[in-house]
Amino acid sequence: MQTPKHKIAILGASGYTGAELVRLIATHPHLQIAALTGERKAGQPMAQVFPFLRHLDLPDLCRIEEVDFAAIDLAFCALPHATSQAVIRDLPRDLKIVDLSADFRLRDPAAYEKWYGKPHAAPDLQTEAVYGLTEFYREDIRSARLVAGTGCNAATGQYALNPLIAAGVIDLDRIIMDLKCGVSGAGRSLKENLLHAELSEGTHAYAAGGTHRHLGEFDQEFTRLAGRPVHVQFTPHLIPMNRGILASIWVDGDAAEIHAVLQDAYCAESFIHVLPFGTLPSTHDVRGSNYVHIGVVGDRIAGRALVVAALDNLCKGSSGQAVQNANLMLGIEETTGLLGVPVFP
Amino acid sequence: MQTPKHKIAILGASGYTGAELVRLIATHPHLQIAALTGERKAGQPMAQVFPFLRHLDLPDLCRIEEVDFAAIDLAFCALPHATSQAVIRDLPRDLKIVDLSADFRLRDPAAYEKWYGKPHAAPDLQTEAVYGLTEFYREDIRSARLVAGTGCNAATGQYALNPLIAAGVIDLDRIIMDLKCGVSGAGRSLKENLLHAELSEGTHAYAAGGTHRHLGEFDQEFTRLAGRPVHVQFTPHLIPMNRGILASIWVDGDAAEIHAVLQDAYCAESFIHVLPFGTLPSTHDVRGSNYVHIGVVGDRIAGRALVVAALDNLCKGSSGQAVQNANLMLGIEETTGLLGVPVFP
Amino acid sequence: MQTPKHKIAILGASGYTGAELVRLIATHPHLQIAALTGERKAGQPMAQVFPFLRHLDLPDLCRIEEVDFAAIDLAFCALPHATSQAVIRDLPRDLKIVDLSADFRLRDPAAYEKWYGKPHAAPDLQTEAVYGLTEFYREDIRSARLVAGTGCNAATGQYALNPLIAAGVIDLDRIIMDLKCGVSGAGRSLKENLLHAELSEGTHAYAAGGTHRHLGEFDQEFTRLAGRPVHVQFTPHLIPMNRGILASIWVDGDAAEIHAVLQDAYCAESFIHVLPFGTLPSTHDVRGSNYVHIGVVGDRIAGRALVVAALDNLCKGSSGQAVQNANLMLGIEETTGLLGVPVFP
Amino acid sequence: MQTPKHKIAILGASGYTGAELVRLIATHPHLQIAALTGERKAGQPMAQVFPFLRHLDLPDLCRIEEVDFAAIDLAFCALPHATSQAVIRDLPRDLKIVDLSADFRLRDPAAYEKWYGKPHAAPDLQTEAVYGLTEFYREDIRSARLVAGTGCNAATGQYALNPLIAAGVIDLDRIIMDLKCGVSGAGRSLKENLLHAELSEGTHAYAAGGTHRHLGEFDQEFTRLAGRPVHVQFTPHLIPMNRGILASIWVDGDAAEIHAVLQDAYCAESFIHVLPFGTLPSTHDVRGSNYVHIGVVGDRIAGRALVVAALDNLCKGSSGQAVQNANLMLGIEETTGLLGVPVFP
Repeated sequence: MQTPKHKIAILGASGYTGAELVRLIATHPHLQIAALTGERKAGQPMAQVFPFLRHLDLPDLCRIEEVDFAAIDLAFCALPHATSQAVIRDLPRDLKIVDLSADFRLRDPAAYEKWYGKPHAAPDLQTEAVYGLTEFYREDIRSARLVAGTGCNAATGQYALNPLIAAGVIDLDRIIMDLKCGVSGAGRSLKENLLHAELSEGTHAYAAGGTHRHLGEFDQEFTRLAGRPVHVQFTPHLIPMNRGILASIWVDGDAAEIHAVLQDAYCAESFIHVLPFGTLPSTHDVRGSNYVHIGVVGDRIAGRALVVAALDNLCKGSSGQAVQNANLMLGIEETTGLLGVPVFP
Repeated sequence: MQTPKHKIAILGASGYTGAELVRLIATHPHLQIAALTGERKAGQPMAQVFPFLRHLDLPDLCRIEEVDFAAIDLAFCALPHATSQAVIRDLPRDLKIVDLSADFRLRDPAAYEKWYGKPHAAPDLQTEAVYGLTEFYREDIRSARLVAGTGCNAATGQYALNPLIAAGVIDLDRIIMDLKCGVSGAGRSLKENLLHAELSEGTHAYAAGGTHRHLGEFDQEFTRLAGRPVHVQFTPHLIPMNRGILASIWVDGDAAEIHAVLQDAYCAESFIHVLPFGTLPSTHDVRGSNYVHIGVVGDRIAGRALVVAALDNLCKGSSGQAVQNANLMLGIEETTGLLGVPVFP
Repeated sequence: MQTPKHKIAILGASGYTGAELVRLIATHPHLQIAALTGERKAGQPMAQVFPFLRHLDLPDLCRIEEVDFAAIDLAFCALPHATSQAVIRDLPRDLKIVDLSADFRLRDPAAYEKWYGKPHAAPDLQTEAVYGLTEFYREDIRSARLVAGTGCNAATGQYALNPLIAAGVIDLDRIIMDLKCGVSGAGRSLKENLLHAELSEGTHAYAAGGTHRHLGEFDQEFTRLAGRPVHVQFTPHLIPMNRGILASIWVDGDAAEIHAVLQDAYCAESFIHVLPFGTLPSTHDVRGSNYVHIGVVGDRIAGRALVVAALDNLCKGSSGQAVQNANLMLGIEETTGLLGVPVFP
Repeated sequence: MQTPKHKIAILGASGYTGAELVRLIATHPHLQIAALTGERKAGQPMAQVFPFLRHLDLPDLCRIEEVDFAAIDLAFCALPHATSQAVIRDLPRDLKIVDLSADFRLRDPAAYEKWYGKPHAAPDLQTEAVYGLTEFYREDIRSARLVAGTGCNAATGQYALNPLIAAGVIDLDRIIMDLKCGVSGAGRSLKENLLHAELSEGTHAYAAGGTHRHLGEFDQEFTRLAGRPVHVQFTPHLIPMNRGILASIWVDGDAAEIHAVLQDAYCAESFIHVLPFGTLPSTHDVRGSNYVHIGVVGDRIAGRALVVAALDNLCKGSSGQAVQNANLMLGIEETTGLLGVPVFP
C-alpha cells in the first residue's frame, strides 16, 4: 500500500463506462483518479452526475483541455466514437492510453471507413493501437502505448470462438451468433427505445442481418486467426436487463471436441471459466464482475453444437477489460482490482 | 346479444392459461363461464386465486367431478400435461373439448412416448384430436370434437416457417430457431429459477441442444408439410418478461422470396401480420393480444435470411388460440372476443 | 352495431395517453377515429409511431390545422400541458372536448398560476370546464362541452379519500399520501431518469415535500368536499413498472368506519371495487384496465388506518377516464368499451 | 497479506444472505471460508447452488454436524428464524457468532414470544446477544461473543430515526414508515407471490397495519432511546427490484433541524451518508454496497418533514452488516472488505 499510485485520468466520465471505470479504480490499490472529464457536465461534482459515487473523494468533472496530462500516467478514453480519435490525436504522444471507443479497433483504414462511414482522422494511431482483447493480445498490450478496447459484443463472441477458429474445429462458413444484450450497452443516451416503458417486459432484434459494426471486429480477428476470410452471421437482441451479454453461437462441429478446445485454451486464465460439458451460462452469474462463463452443448443433430458465452458488457466487455489492460501496461499484476465477485441476485 | 350463450367449463382455472381464458371469455359476447375447476384450490372464489378477476361474476373453483357436463357446451382443459389425458378420457364422448396441454399434440403414439417419456393413456383420443394451429387446420377444427392446443413455442416457430417449408423456399436441413421466451410460459409453478430474484435482470438458455418437447411438434408438422423428414435446431432462452415469445429463425434462402411467400400466405388472415421487408417485430407490440407479427431481413451473406416472429405465449400461443378454435367449433365468427388491442407500454 | 358511430379526433396521438385512447376506441362499438394529430410526427402512419397498433385501419398522423373539425363529434386532447389551452382556445366553441392535460383541472386562475407558474391563456374556458373525475361529477359531465381529465395521481388519491372527507370520518389535518407510480405517467419524453438503465431495479421519491402539481387538484377538491381548507401531504415515488399507481394513504380515523363509508360510496359503481376489510390491493390486478381497487386496514395504534388504492395510470387514471367521460357526453352507456379485463400476469 | 486469516464458517450458505456473505468474504483480506453448511443441499458444491460463485475455491456444502468448530474463529448463522436459536444453543459456548436470523434481536423474552409466536428456546443467549446495529452498538459488539444481526427493514428505519429520537427533535407519537422493499428480502423461498410473473411490473403492501415483526425491533430500540414507549406505524411494500430498501418516513419536526441532527450524528461514519438538505436518496445508488444514503426534505406544511433512507437489504441490511460486526469482534479494521462501490446501473 506504500507504493506510490499511478495517476489516472478518465476522459468521458459522465457515461456508463466512465462511471464503471471509477467504480473499479476506487478500490484498486495501485491506481488513483487524478482527473475526470465530461464536456457537457464540466464543473459538476461526480456525486451529482452519479450519486452512487457520492462517498468517494473524486475530482469534479472538467474539460479535457483543463487536464494537466504531464501529471497523468495513463488515460482512459470513454468518449463517444469519432470524438475519441480527434481527442487522442491531440494528446501527448508518450501518454499511455486505453481507449474504450470503437475508434482504434479496426487496423485497416478501409475497414474502418466501411463500418463507420467516414475516413479515420488519425490513421497513424490506428496502426499503432493494439487490440485490447487481453487474453489474446497480452504481450502486445504489455508494451503498448495505445490499446483499443474491444466492442462488448465483439469480446463476447471472440471468447467463445477464437480458440475454435484457431484450432480449426468448426465450419468457418456456418457460424451464427444470436446475441442477447443488456441495455447499458447503448449508453446513457436519450433515445425513445431505451426508455423503461419501451424496453422493459419485451424483446426485439436490432442491427439485424449483418449490419452491426462489431462485425468489423469479428471479420478482422476471425480472418486473422483462420488465415482466410471468415464472415459470421450476427444479430443482437435487446433484453430488459441493464448489464450482461449472452452470446448463443450455433456452429457446425463436434461438441465434445469444441468443449475440450475451450477448456484447454482457458485453463490458465483467471477470468474465463469453461463450464462442465452440457452446462450453459447465465448473465446473472457474471453481473458486475470481470468474469466470463462459457458453456457447450451438443445438438440432437450430430455435428452441430451450441456454444454460449456470458459476460458483463460494462465490466469485462468494456471497463473491466480496460483496467485489466491498464494493469498490464503499468506493470501491475493483471487481475488487480478486478477480482470482485459477481452481484447476485 | 340476444343469442343464448354457449356454456363453457374451464378445467384447471387456477393456472395462468386458465386465468387468461377467463379474461378472454369475460368479454366474449357468445360464451358464458358455467364452471371453473381447480383441484388444489377447490372451494375458493376466483377473486382469491386471481384478484384481477375480482369484478367478474364467476363460479367458485370446484373439483372436476362436481361439474355437470351435460350442461356444458364446450370444455377448455388447462390441466397439467399427463393429467389432461386421464381427465379427458373420462369425460362424455360427445363433449366438445379444447385441450391446452401437450397431451394430444402428437398424433404418433411412438413420438408421444419418445418426447414425454411414457405411453399415452388415451391413444384413441390421440388419433381423434385435431392439431390446433388454427390458420393451418381451420376446416378440420370446425368439425372437430377434440382440438389439441399447440405448444406456445411450437406455434411461434410454425407461423414463421410453415409457409416457407410448404413453398420449398428454404433449406430444410439448415433451420436454427433461437427463441426468447417470457416466464409465464413456465406456468404458476413454484420453482427456484422462476423467482423474481433469480430471473429478473438476466437471461440464459434452457432445454438446449434439441431436448425441448416442442421439437416433437416441429418434427411432426414440418415433416408433414415437407413430405420428408425435417429436423430443426431449437433452443429457447428465458427472458425477464412475463408474456411474449420472440423466435429468431436463421434460414438459408432468399430473403425477398421468403418475405413474399409469407405475405402471400397470411394476406387474408386477421391475426397474422407480416411486416414490411427489413422490419422486425417486438414482443412489446403483441403483448396481451392474439396478434402475431412476422418480419424478414436478409443477411450480408447472400442466400441467408433471418425470420423473426413474435406473439404472446399466453394469448395467441395458448388461450387466445383456444378461444379462436372454440369459436370455430361452435359456429361463431372466428375472431369474436379476440380483437383486443395489445397493451403498450 | 348498426348505429352510426361518433367521429373522434385525438390531438396528440403520438404519446402514451394518445396511444391508449386509440387502444380503447379501436374496440369501442360507438366511436370511430377520424383524425389523429402529432406535430413532430405528422405524416407518419401510426404503425410506425406505435407498431402495436399496426393491425388497425387508422388515419396517418397529421397537424392540428389539417383536421376538419366540422366532421368531428368529440375531440380528445392528449397534448402537453400549456399547449393544450392554446390549442383548445382556437377550436370551434361547439366542439365537445375531453382534455387530458393539466390545463383545465384547476378552476381558480390564481391556483393555476401558483402550481403551473404562469397565467392561464384561456381563463373563460377554465371556468367552463368540468372536472373529469367521473364518479363524482357524472351529471355535470353528461352536459359538459369541455371536460378536464384529472391528474392520474389526483384520481387515485381522490378515489380513496373523497368519500371519507365528505363523510367526515378522518382527521383532515393528518392525511399523508405516499404514492408508488409507474413510469408511463411521465410520458414518452426523453429524460435520463426515465431510461431503463436508470429506473429498473430501484426506487426513489420525486417532487417531494408538497411540490407536486397534483396537489393543486387535491387542495381544490378536498377543500370543496370538506367545506374548509384541506392540505394533504403527498410524495410520489417512481417504481420500476410501466403502468400503475398505488396510493398508500395514512389517516387518522376508525378503520372499520372508513371501510364502511367506502363500501357504501362505491357499491353501485362499475369500476370502483372496495376489497374486503383487511385486504389490500395490488397494481398487478388492475393493469391495462379501467378498474380501481381500494382496501382498508387498521393500524395497531387505535384510531389510525391505512387506505390503499390501485389503478392503471394510463387507463382509469387518464385515457380510460377520458373515454368514460366521452361516453357520458355523447349519450352512450358509460361503461361501453371499458370493460376489458386487467392483463395478468 | 501475510497475516494468518481468521477461519470462518457460514451456516446456511444456500440462501441469499449466505451467498452474500461468501461474496463479501471472498475478497476480504483477513477472513477465510473454512466451512459452508446447507442442510438440504449438503454435499453439493457451491458452484452448483450458486453458479456466480463458480470461480472461487470453496468447500462443498455440508451438514452442521460435520463442521469442526474447534477450527473455526467465527461463525455466521444465516439460518431460518427459529432454526437459528436451536442450532446456536448447541454450538461451543466460546465460538464467536454473528447471527443473521431474527432469533436474538429482541432482548425481552415476552417481546420475542409476542412477535414470533412461541417461547424462545435459548433465553440465556438471548440476554447475552448484542444488537448488531453497528454504528449504535459499536463498543458492545467489539467485545461481544454473540451478535444479533438486525432486520433489514429495522436497520433502514433506525438509521433514519435513531439520532432524531435521541435528540428529541420529532414527535414520537407521529412516526409513519412507508417502506419500499426489494424481493430478495423474502429469501430464496418458493412462494407464489415471489414468482417473477406475480411480482414484476407491479407493487402492493404486505404485513400492513402494524403486523410486521420488525416492529418488535423498532419498539425495543426506539423506546430505549426515548426513555419512554415509542410505537411507530410501519407498512412495507414489495417492489419489483431484487435489492434495496427505501424507507420514506413521515415525521413531525423541523426539517432543517432534523437534517442538522442527522449530519451531526453521522459525520464521522464511513458508511452512512447524509445528503444535502432537500436531496433524497435512491436505492439504485447503494445497490450491492454497504452504504446508506439518507435525505431530508421539508413539507409545505410547516413542522412536517420527510426523511428517506436507502440501503441494500442483503448487504448493509444483512450480510454486510454481519461482516462489519465480525470485523469488530475479530479486531480487524471495521470497514475492511466492505468498501466495494455500489453497482450502477
